[in-house]
Amino acid sequence: MSDDFQPACPVPIGQYEHIVLAHGGGGRLMQQLLERLVQPAFANPYLAARHDSAVFEAGGQRLAFTTDSYVVKPLFFPGGDIGKLAVCGTLNDLAMAGAKPLFLSAALIIEEGLAIADLKRVLDSMAATAKAAGVMIVTGDTKVVDRGKGDGLFINTAGIGLVGPGVDISPAQVRPGDVVLVNGDIGRHGIAIMAQREGLAFETTLESDCADVSGLVAGLLEAGVELHCLRDLTRGGLASTLIEIAQSAGLGIVLEETAVPVREDVAGACEILGFDPLYVANEGRFAAFVPEAHAERALAWLRAHPLGENAQAIGRVVAAHGGAVHLETAFGVGRVLDLLSGEQLPRIC
Amino acid sequence: MSDDFQPACPVPIGQYEHIVLAHGGGGRLMQQLLERLVQPAFANPYLAARHDSAVFEAGGQRLAFTTDSYVVKPLFFPGGDIGKLAVCGTLNDLAMAGAKPLFLSAALIIEEGLAIADLKRVLDSMAATAKAAGVMIVTGDTKVVDRGKGDGLFINTAGIGLVGPGVDISPAQVRPGDVVLVNGDIGRHGIAIMAQREGLAFETTLESDCADVSGLVAGLLEAGVELHCLRDLTRGGLASTLIEIAQSAGLGIVLEETAVPVREDVAGACEILGFDPLYVANEGRFAAFVPEAHAERALAWLRAHPLGENAQAIGRVVAAHGGAVHLETAFGVGRVLDLLSGEQLPRIC
Repeated sequence: MSDDFQPACPVPIGQYEHIVLAHGGGGRLMQQLLERLVQPAFANPYLAARHDSAVFEAGGQRLAFTTDSYVVKPLFFPGGDIGKLAVCGTLNDLAMAGAKPLFLSAALIIEEGLAIADLKRVLDSMAATAKAAGVMIVTGDTKVVDRGKGDGLFINTAGIGLVGPGVDISPAQVRPGDVVLVNGDIGRHGIAIMAQREGLAFETTLESDCADVSGLVAGLLEAGVELHCLRDLTRGGLASTLIEIAQSAGLGIVLEETAVPVREDVAGACEILGFDPLYVANEGRFAAFVPEAHAERALAWLRAHPLGENAQAIGRVVAAHGGAVHLETAFGVGRVLDLLSGEQLPRIC
Repeated sequence: MSDDFQPACPVPIGQYEHIVLAHGGGGRLMQQLLERLVQPAFANPYLAARHDSAVFEAGGQRLAFTTDSYVVKPLFFPGGDIGKLAVCGTLNDLAMAGAKPLFLSAALIIEEGLAIADLKRVLDSMAATAKAAGVMIVTGDTKVVDRGKGDGLFINTAGIGLVGPGVDISPAQVRPGDVVLVNGDIGRHGIAIMAQREGLAFETTLESDCADVSGLVAGLLEAGVELHCLRDLTRGGLASTLIEIAQSAGLGIVLEETAVPVREDVAGACEILGFDPLYVANEGRFAAFVPEAHAERALAWLRAHPLGENAQAIGRVVAAHGGAVHLETAFGVGRVLDLLSGEQLPRIC
């Protein structure tokens, strides 16, 4: 055997020489993994932009390109399934760059033993979600791994979208004075998954917020709302998303706790389970950074749409506190939000 | 729990109600899965074309788009690793549509416990392979699954390429009289993986043929060679590839066994292991269908290139035998090649 197959010397990241679940959790360990290992390896300005999609010119046209793998457990949950999630997630990542989604790919990694009926149900769900969004799944791949080497089904989707002229949505466009909007109540996806996984029963069934918000973003753009930055509130939830944007933009964000919409049943479940809803994953919620003069119009537009009826202005961008998010609590006390080191809920998306 | 979570009724495909390894093997069971389940769910003309890449117009430009997940075991093997494979595989799929690769995505599904040193080695390999091809990995995703729910590392790459004017390479372009070329000896990737996996030792180390052939295809196009169809000889090997193209094109292919280049050590290993090299996977080999008048020029061009020095004309397209591949053996006896039901070598790519 050649030298190529000798064990490599350890390459620690912080105290870790091996990957732990938290490296995929959307918190500080994941940020370290990306900043110390992935981004240096692939060093280029597109990745460095740390946007949900890469935006580039191809053939005289600006395109957005994005990918996500989905490893959610269980495969089926109230309000959705891994197929709906895989399509919505990639549509949303395109929308967060202001792109109109055009085409998706779908790649399946199936564990030997998966019921074909379950696979069919997931595929039908993907197809229905794509159809509703007016996009086509045009290319794909199927792999099967041995029993015990996967977990039922993992799905990767990648997507291509068209970015219209004049659209420039990215963390670099965030300005002091921008108002931060959210399109609805937060925390439902994470809690729905957790409840399903742990067999917890609440008085009402908590459904995931999993949804395609690309139509909502297209509508805001058509309505002439100036969108500086958009970001969906997935792994790590609202808090982690805002911290990342504050860091990328080098600006501060003041978040008003009382303005953040959280449904009572979600708040109750979070209390029981010991989670902070600000850090719980969503799959149909996004933060929009808009200039103050456009905030009212954006809110009115969002609230007229079923996926934005609980939209709220939840904070503002300030020149102070560069790179940090200040939470103003109900008691008027401020505190700085931290990235959690790991994750609250593994395998949430 | 709502009705949504009741077990679904069985949906058999042939005799199978559950996924088996062979459903991912590139043979008949995989074809059944795609034709009976995946393609009907996502029904659209791009998928129906059964090409390695979808080709479509976007912003007045023709683009190719493709995706593949890589689940090869072991992660490191003579001649490559999962990272090199994941980049080459998607570059090659773009090249098979005659596209110039532009941008790639990379999505990792990591099993808890993977050594960060191994991850770094794979990422560096991906970066080096992409750099050598002049493409950038511009977007990505990282997921971590619990120990025992993955297998070290799975990688998905998707790719976007630009299809030049007048280029129309697909099974639908195959014509009677076309000559079938292959760019080198076959079977090395599959045998290298198998030898590594099983700890088999041969006199010489058998290295995978894993390579990016996009430059080779670009060169053929620049040299003015008319390319009717290209297909890389991955899962299922040369035989399965030619059978699929014969079926898609509704034409016959006559394959001359003695013309197919197989290295002596590969032939020997196949004999010991009980494999037919015609069905063993390759990762740097493709079949090219060219009009007879262009065959000599194409061969000369290929042979001048390190990745094509063993290129051969191995067969021809005929109007007879619609949908079938006839093998003319060394003894002058013909037989029809069948798709194998399952796969010879699981987890080969």
